[in-house]
Amino acid sequence: MKGMKEIFENINIDSWVQHFLRSPHQFNKPHDSDAELIEIPGNSHHYLAVTIDTVAEEITSGLYQDPYTMGWVTVMACLSDLAAVGAEPLGLVVSASIEPSRDRTFTNSIARGMEDACRTLGIFILGGDTNITPTISLTSCALGLVPRENAMTRRGCKPGEDVFITGGLGIGNALGLVRLTKLPSDYFPEKIYRPVAHIKEGQILRKYVSCCMDTSDGLLTTLDQLMRLNGLGFVVDCDWERILEPEVLELCNKTQTPPWLMIAGPHGEFKLLFTISAKVADKVLAQPQFEGTNLIRLGKVQQTPAISLALPSGQSVNIDMAPIRNLLQTVGADLEQYVREFRSIGKKLGLE
Amino acid sequence: MKGMKEIFENINIDSWVQHFLRSPHQFNKPHDSDAELIEIPGNSHHYLAVTIDTVAEEITSGLYQDPYTMGWVTVMACLSDLAAVGAEPLGLVVSASIEPSRDRTFTNSIARGMEDACRTLGIFILGGDTNITPTISLTSCALGLVPRENAMTRRGCKPGEDVFITGGLGIGNALGLVRLTKLPSDYFPEKIYRPVAHIKEGQILRKYVSCCMDTSDGLLTTLDQLMRLNGLGFVVDCDWERILEPEVLELCNKTQTPPWLMIAGPHGEFKLLFTISAKVADKVLAQPQFEGTNLIRLGKVQQTPAISLALPSGQSVNIDMAPIRNLLQTVGADLEQYVREFRSIGKKLGLE
Repeated sequence: MKGMKEIFENINIDSWVQHFLRSPHQFNKPHDSDAELIEIPGNSHHYLAVTIDTVAEEITSGLYQDPYTMGWVTVMACLSDLAAVGAEPLGLVVSASIEPSRDRTFTNSIARGMEDACRTLGIFILGGDTNITPTISLTSCALGLVPRENAMTRRGCKPGEDVFITGGLGIGNALGLVRLTKLPSDYFPEKIYRPVAHIKEGQILRKYVSCCMDTSDGLLTTLDQLMRLNGLGFVVDCDWERILEPEVLELCNKTQTPPWLMIAGPHGEFKLLFTISAKVADKVLAQPQFEGTNLIRLGKVQQTPAISLALPSGQSVNIDMAPIRNLLQTVGADLEQYVREFRSIGKKLGLE
Repeated sequence: MKGMKEIFENINIDSWVQHFLRSPHQFNKPHDSDAELIEIPGNSHHYLAVTIDTVAEEITSGLYQDPYTMGWVTVMACLSDLAAVGAEPLGLVVSASIEPSRDRTFTNSIARGMEDACRTLGIFILGGDTNITPTISLTSCALGLVPRENAMTRRGCKPGEDVFITGGLGIGNALGLVRLTKLPSDYFPEKIYRPVAHIKEGQILRKYVSCCMDTSDGLLTTLDQLMRLNGLGFVVDCDWERILEPEVLELCNKTQTPPWLMIAGPHGEFKLLFTISAKVADKVLAQPQFEGTNLIRLGKVQQTPAISLALPSGQSVNIDMAPIRNLLQTVGADLEQYVREFRSIGKKLGLE
């Protein structure tokens, strides 16, 4: 959008996309949806939803230390993209590129993490590829079907609509905080970080929502991306007890960490964020099919393209996510400087 | 098969697969086909064909030095798997994990290689993912549809059938030889290595063949794999002028390289190898739809599970591919020793 600072990641994606002719059978445009939506010859009712995701930086940076987490997240990241378009999964394929020094226990644990993530959701790994590489990277590609008239995208929200999430926030950034600030692991054990893709929720929501995106990159990055795509803004009701997971809140209290970091950091939790007409929200979301889903009202869509944090103090603060989203590259991947500058942005805004 | 030495790569794949429950909607078993074949709900006529492939070792080992080749092969490797099951491609997604030190020229060239490979075949890149990683790896995942009754697999050949390939062999191993023996690049310029997936040929052949596999890992590895799956062997008519590409033959002559290395090495050329009833082969393959395809009769399926090379000298040699396929691991990835031991196997067999 005009007047907004560009996001390096979006520029990078566009620099790839500019080389590629667009398929005439593709429904979505670049950035428009969490999974690609493709017409299938002979099937006028569904799109094939397909998405690919690599987990690598999270491992080489030391964020994930347990191979089981590595496998689990590789699979869930892709399945969450399917969830965010409302697809019914057909399965997935995986490619594991692993260092020669790793032993069988390590690769077995990755495989079990992948498989357990799939079994949690009744989904199957269909096949894959393995390679020996100097540094690890794990890729998965997930496939699904979604009814054409109900496929969810990131576009379509309107001012005044309600914003919801399908569960509490912060487990991804809590783990990130523990690693970045070198806190002992037991402050937030890695095994708490077992995000589950909200496949079932996506399939129910697809009939009602105006737009949907998963929070794989953290809440505020998700909202920033939706703001840029829709030309609208969001008010976030920062009622921390209500929107953060209990373990995350506990970590914040124990370590005197300002809770805004748990929604501003880039390591998300794979919940679905969606917008829905305020008129029907209560009625729709009270349906028995949402039983077991922790739907949380997060705030509102607003006309002004800004992310406004409505703080517990009663104050409202507009947060510009561009410098935060670009920060890792700005500091040249120096993680100590990253944490320092991240928090200094918070201080300037009165969030710390 | 009983009595045969195990292949490390197959053991490795099985060690992953053992963790994974098999989808009740998957037609193929592990190892059985170049792409996974999956039932699509509501479509009783087609399988969804899906395959994932990572190109990494070929780059980090210095085999590919031109980023355009890296992009090209990443895409073609997957498309060739679709070709080998006879699928009609729906498109592909890519994931590029690249070192932070690489500049825009480098990534642009990868993207152009990917796109040009796709355009050669009228196929589209649907989306993807990018990451910054300590070492490069490029993954693609391709999707297609194939009529259920005509999907080709690696199983089904019968003794006495003819074996064909859809074009001349050796460009992959020729490039490999130049790199491994440190010959000047102009002996076999990397840009000669632009394999094209035989998508059209696969779609025609699927009606007639008894089994099919691409030669991505070189001819003899392909035959060895088919031998293990079918419990049958193959006679290869080693008429080098007829089965090797002219540039490959020229390299062999110029450098006094024994031509068997061009079919025994592990870096293939993405031709389709297929078996077909000898009774119908001539009639089927003379059809006008094969115009423009260089179909080469390679040999025969034999009852004995052995790969028999019928040499120009009139001699016949049985080659055990297990020590060759396992060699890179046996020598601990020492490339000089690899070349030495590879050739000493040839000397013992009288192939050098």
